[in-house]
Order: sequence, then structure tokens, then C-alpha cells
Amino acid sequence: MSRVTDELGRVRASQDGGREASNWVHPQFLDRWSPRALLPEPIPADHVESLLEAVRWAPSCFNEQPWVVVWATRDDREAHARLVECLAESNRRWAAVAPLLAVLGARTRFARNGKDNRWADFDAGSAWLSLALQAEALGYRAHAMGGFDVERAHELLGFPRGEVRPLAAIAVGRQGPVESLPEELRERERPSDRRAVDSFAFRGRHPR
Amino acid sequence: MSRVTDELGRVRASQDGGREASNWVHPQFLDRWSPRALLPEPIPADHVESLLEAVRWAPSCFNEQPWVVVWATRDDREAHARLVECLAESNRRWAAVAPLLAVLGARTRFARNGKDNRWADFDAGSAWLSLALQAEALGYRAHAMGGFDVERAHELLGFPRGEVRPLAAIAVGRQGPVESLPEELRERERPSDRRAVDSFAFRGRHPR
Repeated sequence: MSRVTDELGRVRASQDGGREASNWVHPQFLDRWSPRALLPEPIPADHVESLLEAVRWAPSCFNEQPWVVVWATRDDREAHARLVECLAESNRRWAAVAPLLAVLGARTRFARNGKDNRWADFDAGSAWLSLALQAEALGYRAHAMGGFDVERAHELLGFPRGEVRPLAAIAVGRQGPVESLPEELRERERPSDRRAVDSFAFRGRHPR
Repeated sequence: MSRVTDELGRVRASQDGGREASNWVHPQFLDRWSPRALLPEPIPADHVESLLEAVRWAPSCFNEQPWVVVWATRDDREAHARLVECLAESNRRWAAVAPLLAVLGARTRFARNGKDNRWADFDAGSAWLSLALQAEALGYRAHAMGGFDVERAHELLGFPRGEVRPLAAIAVGRQGPVESLPEELRERERPSDRRAVDSFAFRGRHPR
């Protein structure tokens, strides 16, 4: 599908036409979404390295780089199974086939002084978006899940308790046809919309 | 400066040659950085709209979209001055000239049920990176600061106490020459490096 691009490379609609922006924006933000239908097709090692390299260069407070990633590809059956075991049952139904699974966490204290890092989760969030956008650039989809068992992430994946807070499970793979999903998940399989900009961005002052 | 790009559009060094990646990665992650030397040159309204539109399409847990942005351009002198007043003294020295200042916060509870949103900061972090990458795509630099006065953000910018947690102040502008900075800030004016991938990413299990 073709779409109109302005002289700065910005667009007003996603590639598939399903999302419309209110303002011109770089296409990567509109095109990225989190489908559940992922193909089991393996991800080459050098693509996994690119995903982790993108995480590496995320910005962080005092350049603390508080993100931690435990990951497994599907060919490493034992490790992949441990990651599947961390997922909520509702996510296992579609994410268990993903060729790459990961759990992203954040070191909760500054390495430099042991004090609480108020920006640990915030910085881990920018690391997650880096991974998601690098995945898109390589033709994959990345889907983050809040629905996973934090205790199991500590126990099965070794995230040190009291040091690293597991925040999101992530499935990565090429997008598959909606028919590959269990029937009850098919209806939700479309890019989500957003609230209007003026619902979250305020010039000068937050309204009362 | 020219650089080698692979068939997937990935690079191994930043545009200015100052950063080297360990693996092939999309150039936007290596090229993005947070200089202090910003030009006062105004940002057109439609560019500001693009930055906010990029924030809008960030991913979030249950599509909650917990991010909140209060922003001002320099031509709106009163509002811009209020944002400057929220900055730590050390940041005012360079960020006060920025044509766009913002404070990004996160709604701490889910709109749907009033419960604590464990992913509020995490999702605000992905909104921040969306803004930063959209800024880069338009030829600007975005610099996030932990150094600002949270109490003043509540008081001067109206962030509702107990509802929105102010997380980062952000300065956006075109990059200026290092000589435009106060002398004591010039030495630090270069892109930061990163720890190795194997210091934060672990296959299968976090080491003890």
C-alpha cells in the first residue's frame, strides 16, 4: 500500500491504513504494533544481537543503563520453556511459539552509590522501545506483556531478588496470519488506537 | 561523513564516528545523544506536534497511555520561565535557552480501576524515547534531565499530586557549537559510551 510522505519523511497513516495520526509523524511510530499472531520461524543470531545492541544504546539517567534482559530462542528448548513458564496462561496461548522470548528488568539501585534509582523503570521503558523499533526495522514484531509471573522470573530466570525488578516479558517474531491464533484471540488482533494529544499534552500548565 | 550500511540498513558506527557498536544496529540508536549545547532557534509548531504525536503512539500496558506532558516554547515567555524554574540550577545553565522545554510525568493509577499501575514509569520511558527519536528525525536533539524539582513541577506546572508523578524534564533544540556552552560544561560535551551487551543481557538465565 502506498501512502503520502511529507518532505521530512513523516506520514499521517500507518502502512496498512488502519491507524490515522492527527499530526505528521515518523512512520515507525504508527507502523509499530503488538500483534499476537507470530510465526515460529527462527530469528538469526545476528538479528538477536541487533535487538540487544539497540537496547544497549538507550538513554538513561546518569548513563546508569539499569536494564537487564534474560532471553532465549526457541531452538534452546530448555531455556525457552522456562521463559514460557513465566508467562501468564493467557499469554502462553499465543506467545509460546515466538522464536524469541525475553524478560526485561531494571536494576533498582544505582551502581555508583547503592541508592534507589528513581528512573530505573523509566529507563527500562526506553530500552524496551529501542528493542521494539529495532525489531520493526528488521521485519519483526515485538509484543511486551505485563502478564507474567514475577516470582517465577526470579526463580526460573535468576533475576536477583531485591536488585532487579522484572518488568515486562517480550515476544518477538515475524507476524503471522490471524488464522494462526486460537479463535478467541482473533477479534482483538488489530492495532490499538490512542487518546487525543490534548488529553495528555498541555501547553504551559496541567489543567485542574 | 560516510559510513558503511549493511543490506538491512544497519551500521556499526555513529554518523560522527564517535560511537562504535559491537553489533549491526539501526543508525537512529547510535546517532541519538543528549548534548547540552542547544541553539535558541525556535521550533515550528508543526514540529512540536510531531514530537507529541510520536509520544501518543508509544506502547503501554493495557494501552493505558499513562504519559503526561507539560510543555512550553520559548516564545511563550511566562510558561517557558516556569519550566526553567523547575530545573536544577546545574541544568538551567545550559537548558534555559532551549526553544522547547517539557516535563514528562506518569499517571500512577489505572484509569479503568484506580489501582496502582506498576508499568506507569516504564511506559512513560517508552514515550520519552519516542519523543527523542522523533526529535532526531527532524534534526533536533532531545535531552532528558532527572535534575529538576518535583515539588515545583506540581506547584508551577499543575501536575496533580498523588495522581501524576513527574519523571523527567526535557529540553529540545538544534545542536549548537560546544563553544556556546559555559566553559565548565564543554569537556563533558560528547556522546556517552555504553557497557558491553554481555553485562546486561543473559541467554537463558541471569548469572549469580
